[in-house]
Amino acid sequence: MRLALAVEYAGFAFCGFQSQPSRCGVQDALERAVGEIAGHPVGIVAAGRTDAGVHAVSQVVHFDTGAVRPDTAWVRGVNTHLPGQAAVLWSHPVPDDFHARFAATARYYTYLLLNRPERPGLMAGRVGWYHHRLDVGAMRAGAALLTGTHDFSSFRAAECQAKSPVKTLDRLEVKKVADEVQIEASALSFLHHQVRSMVGSLKLVGEGKWHARDLADALAATDRARCGPVAPPDGLYLVKVEY
Amino acid sequence: MRLALAVEYAGFAFCGFQSQPSRCGVQDALERAVGEIAGHPVGIVAAGRTDAGVHAVSQVVHFDTGAVRPDTAWVRGVNTHLPGQAAVLWSHPVPDDFHARFAATARYYTYLLLNRPERPGLMAGRVGWYHHRLDVGAMRAGAALLTGTHDFSSFRAAECQAKSPVKTLDRLEVKKVADEVQIEASALSFLHHQVRSMVGSLKLVGEGKWHARDLADALAATDRARCGPVAPPDGLYLVKVEY
Repeated sequence: MRLALAVEYAGFAFCGFQSQPSRCGVQDALERAVGEIAGHPVGIVAAGRTDAGVHAVSQVVHFDTGAVRPDTAWVRGVNTHLPGQAAVLWSHPVPDDFHARFAATARYYTYLLLNRPERPGLMAGRVGWYHHRLDVGAMRAGAALLTGTHDFSSFRAAECQAKSPVKTLDRLEVKKVADEVQIEASALSFLHHQVRSMVGSLKLVGEGKWHARDLADALAATDRARCGPVAPPDGLYLVKVEY
Repeated sequence: MRLALAVEYAGFAFCGFQSQPSRCGVQDALERAVGEIAGHPVGIVAAGRTDAGVHAVSQVVHFDTGAVRPDTAWVRGVNTHLPGQAAVLWSHPVPDDFHARFAATARYYTYLLLNRPERPGLMAGRVGWYHHRLDVGAMRAGAALLTGTHDFSSFRAAECQAKSPVKTLDRLEVKKVADEVQIEASALSFLHHQVRSMVGSLKLVGEGKWHARDLADALAATDRARCGPVAPPDGLYLVKVEY
């Protein structure tokens, strides 16, 4: 039987989603906790393998088990075995051919960028930060140039394992909410570091160091060296996955 | 010269505001950091001595110094010496008779109570939690009975040092925002543990274990033993101080 779980976590409490030899990944924590309830070792597959420091409002994972347990066991039971900074939100039985990663039809990310002179204190680890006032209008104009289907090689980590650098960015919106600039991105899938790379370059536009046109040029160059600095993981949230 | 600072902090990173022998208080961190900039030891006085685990969106403190520094030194300079989970937001020169604690005319607290079956993960340490659905309407009716001038002895910690248990609660509002119940309280001043005690008793009303009338009876009894369980500090924020 295959089960899907939704999971939230604070990224700073883990070394990324993916399993590590030191067992510090969200995947390691989930495999331990789900294994306790299942009574046998389980392998966890996630919709998005978030980097160290990146948070999830609702990550989706799947695993296989022969164990029959009530839904509450897969949620509250697993939660008693998870570290405090991670929690299962729901559990659903899914068809055997469901795949958390390959069956996803859309992924939604939000980047929170605190934009004020003083560095974060209360929200340390949960927001990016830029101290000068960002030009949100210019960032919006830049974001509009990135949406659609493009070769995103300029916004791709060297270690990215995707077969093709061509992706369709469905949505890239820039909002100002109190003293935060919030950047919302959605697509079928993203390249490794794509959101943080786009945020880093949009920040250059907001600072006035780049014009929106420079962003289009960077995109067209399909050259990683043309990308702005990659934004830190602290502000990035995997918000939702659709199937 | 007397200076006032506004400070934000995540309460779980400190053992409360007040200085401790082990120097783990927010006050200790501020005295160290401000002392570095002033070049001499300073004593910090706060508007509200928040308990361990209680957060501040904008705590106000004052200190005296003969050192003349630009505002940025008292803000960004001090921030370079503070732990990451605390940050100074602004600095203002104030009259010598200004007192962060005694001159305050209103204090605003908000309690965030996550109300869903699953325990917090992403927001662990930053919200209280109750797993059954709370009756917000009943909590509102209960809150209305607590506003005004009363002897709040039933909602007072044993170690409270206030001269009188009589306080005027200007506002106690209960809101539902997504899956959070948010309780906002304001008054000239509060007794020790008063907000968390009121929240704990309002929670009993929301659960249906108490009627709003039981809350009025508990208040009238002026007896600590009649109070509901004190809510944990995780969900409590000192939001604003007025002068």
